[in-house]
Amino acid sequence: MTAHSATLAIDEAVRARWAAGQRVLHLGFGEAGLPVPESVVEVLTAAADRNGYGPVAGSPEAREAAAGWFGRRGLPTEPGRVLFAPGSKPLLFALLATLPGDVFLPRPAWVSYAAQSALAGKRVIGVPVPPEAGGVPDPERLQAVLRTRRGPGVLVLTVPDNPTGTVARPEHLRAVCELAERHGLALVADEIYAELIHDGSRAPSAATHLPERTVITTGLSKSLALGGWRIGFARLPEGPWGDAVLAELRGVASEVWSSLAAPMQAVAAHVLADPPELLAHVDAARRLHAKVAAAVHAELLAAGATCRRPEAGFYLYPDFEPHRAALAAKGIDGGAALATELLERHGVGVLPGEAFGDEPGALRCRMATSLLYGETTAERRQALRAEDPLTLPWVAAALADLRTALAALTSPTPGTAPRAAGAAGCLDVLSAPTAGALGRTR
Amino acid sequence: MTAHSATLAIDEAVRARWAAGQRVLHLGFGEAGLPVPESVVEVLTAAADRNGYGPVAGSPEAREAAAGWFGRRGLPTEPGRVLFAPGSKPLLFALLATLPGDVFLPRPAWVSYAAQSALAGKRVIGVPVPPEAGGVPDPERLQAVLRTRRGPGVLVLTVPDNPTGTVARPEHLRAVCELAERHGLALVADEIYAELIHDGSRAPSAATHLPERTVITTGLSKSLALGGWRIGFARLPEGPWGDAVLAELRGVASEVWSSLAAPMQAVAAHVLADPPELLAHVDAARRLHAKVAAAVHAELLAAGATCRRPEAGFYLYPDFEPHRAALAAKGIDGGAALATELLERHGVGVLPGEAFGDEPGALRCRMATSLLYGETTAERRQALRAEDPLTLPWVAAALADLRTALAALTSPTPGTAPRAAGAAGCLDVLSAPTAGALGRTR
Repeated sequence: MTAHSATLAIDEAVRARWAAGQRVLHLGFGEAGLPVPESVVEVLTAAADRNGYGPVAGSPEAREAAAGWFGRRGLPTEPGRVLFAPGSKPLLFALLATLPGDVFLPRPAWVSYAAQSALAGKRVIGVPVPPEAGGVPDPERLQAVLRTRRGPGVLVLTVPDNPTGTVARPEHLRAVCELAERHGLALVADEIYAELIHDGSRAPSAATHLPERTVITTGLSKSLALGGWRIGFARLPEGPWGDAVLAELRGVASEVWSSLAAPMQAVAAHVLADPPELLAHVDAARRLHAKVAAAVHAELLAAGATCRRPEAGFYLYPDFEPHRAALAAKGIDGGAALATELLERHGVGVLPGEAFGDEPGALRCRMATSLLYGETTAERRQALRAEDPLTLPWVAAALADLRTALAALTSPTPGTAPRAAGAAGCLDVLSAPTAGALGRTR
Repeated sequence: MTAHSATLAIDEAVRARWAAGQRVLHLGFGEAGLPVPESVVEVLTAAADRNGYGPVAGSPEAREAAAGWFGRRGLPTEPGRVLFAPGSKPLLFALLATLPGDVFLPRPAWVSYAAQSALAGKRVIGVPVPPEAGGVPDPERLQAVLRTRRGPGVLVLTVPDNPTGTVARPEHLRAVCELAERHGLALVADEIYAELIHDGSRAPSAATHLPERTVITTGLSKSLALGGWRIGFARLPEGPWGDAVLAELRGVASEVWSSLAAPMQAVAAHVLADPPELLAHVDAARRLHAKVAAAVHAELLAAGATCRRPEAGFYLYPDFEPHRAALAAKGIDGGAALATELLERHGVGVLPGEAFGDEPGALRCRMATSLLYGETTAERRQALRAEDPLTLPWVAAALADLRTALAALTSPTPGTAPRAAGAAGCLDVLSAPTAGALGRTR
């Protein structure tokens, strides 16, 4: 049984509460929460007469643009090594399903890798990440695991990382790539947050360390906030291994999804040419993500949680371990109970760490900050343009709600009425699917 | 190894020849070959600001419209039983991967069912179709197969059918549904050609015979010629079995593709409301398909092939068995050699029967007639409006080319120079992937 993706489930659960008039702070979903740039709307409109299937891998124009895009980012790429898909999710599924052997994941890792592996009948081996940053396994722990086994395998790396919002240290990435090379693993490098490192830098790609055995997946869902347009693409390496994986991937693509929608391919060709106004748009988005994530980080530290400093994207992965005693007194003994308490008593939607493969007993959860920018397109535009988005009334109010909720959550007194408690009164009408989504284990 | 979908491969092979300046009659690909209706372009344009992921199963508006669409076609449906996806292909894959047991297919059947089943590690059992029409197994032969086994299984029915272009006889459909019920099989009813029955009638759905165990898949690729927009949807039955399959399907959807692109959901909501101008558009498309398919059928019979009379969609499935001796003299001993000969010596792209699971030694192939309507949008519009499309110069020329090619193919004299032989002179520069695509066995 493939359970509903935890990230999509929490989004639906929160939206159902909103529709029912409840006040919920939505920190559960990694949707970039920003409007579609004007030129992108124009390109989609202009492509509305394109209804042919076209090549499985994508139009020549889209593949050419993607190749140039990688090239300008330090990875020379032939258009023939690019394959588009309706999102990077189908590409990741196809890779995990067809690359042979066990799947090694950083722990915690994005929710769908493990579910996709299970769907493909693969064994998943989670290896904890270092304290410094997530997205790659701790090299020493990975080495210990690899020493005990033989045969092929796939290692997924998420740089920058979801759920921790951090960027793997270069020395860890290098060490892990060396281990992968020595043990004959294939690397799947999920780099969908690569444009959103807060200081504007670029992280080295695994493909620079292990060029002939690394497949990169990425897309326009995060940098351009086009999640609902489902535009993903992969870069396959040169060489015989890359040839074989590309052929396999094209085969799966042709049988499972045919191609990315033709009008969306026109969008990809436009965006990936890096027109200056879109680069400026992504710059503005990055600054906004950085400021709001930093503010939420400050609230978490003020509330006594520990949390890695956010470095990329719009995620935080706090640990409420310092409050274990106070939480235990309220019956909260792990991530799932923590997330349920936050949603049902404090009106804050988050995902429990165990949705990301973390230990069920850990008091960790993922908070996504990207839906705090406003509810309307006008508010989101204003957030994107603001010198200091934290002073916008709706952003300030959201941060104040979070502060109140965190104070109530971590208060030693059970039963303290939280400010956002209006939500709690409606608990008895909450639908079963919500509890299922939050209570799911992976 | 998942080979490249034969249908998509032949399309890419023919387009590569066109790009190289060769003259090829493209009968290889089931693309509906018609322009996007004006109101559909407008709806996509108006939805270009929708970039959120939205619910996995589709927007409330799209699901409501789909439910009404099924209801007006004799299948009352709750919006909650509808699930959208980027094409019906991912839905079929998810169903074949997760419904338990062996996969029973009509033989021949559309190329991707078997490939998807193989990707999911499923055993495929092909059961020949009756002589009257394809898309459902011959009931007696199915009964014989089912008598020898136990355990769960899935039966795929394609009504109307691809590749034969026919509509299963009601008595065969009923008998097969009864067998499925008696043996506990699940039914997957691929009804993507249901709007395109040439006489304007509707075939009964398997869901009317076995309502609680039938999942219908369909989409807008064929009726509205929106193949390149990737809009598919499924109808799940009421009842506990339907509940479980729906939950499973939503799970797979959420982990493998997230959702149909949001602007495409707006298109679905518009189209599935059955606005009169779109019903008229589909009517016109149906008449065009019927006339051109009938004309190609007449050419095939005139050339001495046998072929079921086309009843729906834009496919024919001729059998050149009457010419076996003449073909054998040219070294043609099965479907693959037949397709290669047609493409490489006579400039006609078709797919061999074995791509559809048929016997490799059979001299059968599938011809799709939908790319004969013209090369430009203007030509295709004209074909759609024409009282007698067969008199349009480009359609008449295509039919004349086909006549010449069939005459040369079936001529008892090896080496007769076909009229479209210009293509044959370029054989030595043909790319390897083409040969692979045509030579593949499934």
